[in-house]
Amino acid sequence: MLKLKILSIGKTKEKWLEEAFNEYLKRLQPTVQVDCQWAKDDPQLLEWALKEPAVLGLDPAGRLFTSEAFSNFLCQQWEIQGSRLTLVIGGAEGLPLAIKQKAQLISLSPLTFTHQMTRLILIEQVYRALEIQRGSHYHK
Amino acid sequence: MLKLKILSIGKTKEKWLEEAFNEYLKRLQPTVQVDCQWAKDDPQLLEWALKEPAVLGLDPAGRLFTSEAFSNFLCQQWEIQGSRLTLVIGGAEGLPLAIKQKAQLISLSPLTFTHQMTRLILIEQVYRALEIQRGSHYHK
Repeated sequence: MLKLKILSIGKTKEKWLEEAFNEYLKRLQPTVQVDCQWAKDDPQLLEWALKEPAVLGLDPAGRLFTSEAFSNFLCQQWEIQGSRLTLVIGGAEGLPLAIKQKAQLISLSPLTFTHQMTRLILIEQVYRALEIQRGSHYHK
Repeated sequence: MLKLKILSIGKTKEKWLEEAFNEYLKRLQPTVQVDCQWAKDDPQLLEWALKEPAVLGLDPAGRLFTSEAFSNFLCQQWEIQGSRLTLVIGGAEGLPLAIKQKAQLISLSPLTFTHQMTRLILIEQVYRALEIQRGSHYHK
């Protein structure tokens, strides 16, 4: 079973976003054990992230991928890291510097998204990444 | 009053997506008159798009922007085109070739999103673009 921890700041406020996010969690359930932790502020996010062995940080200046390349990258990382990965989404000010220094930085787009919407886009790409590996028709 | 037409394929199926999309429509109401038309298939999308004078097409191979650059680009286009723009989102197979040839192609990310989620990301970026011009704190 693959494990994915998602660390971010602030609870999901919008009900629609929670609903959408949960839909992808449900779809991922057979393959990935997803553990979401929403920190109350930057110091808590930092504390949590520094405890994790394998951290990918979302940053607008991070590496850009096509969905196929992201699929390969993510699955390689899971393999290298013993099936456990942690994804960190920063708050309104982006990632704390110490996380930027420790993590591999990836980007969903040069555009800035709300950090709430980033969660949804990210979880959909994780689901898409696994569907691409499975050779399903979801991503077509 | 700025005018924006969004052409795409298929009604929004997910209720959460409709809710989120409508939230941004509401926020745009004082500034932009948004007219959304969901075509039933590719030929209808093509027919509609070819009637429009100023078309921006969403394509993974299109031009990438930061949110600030997109804000400048979008507002310049509105100015050049007499305050009227049409954004076209393709279906599962992407944009029909004739639209690709006619339109300026822009991209939200090298990643592939569901075309339903693309609508939400796009409308949020249009809202963000105008907030950037207004100098509000939304985009910070």
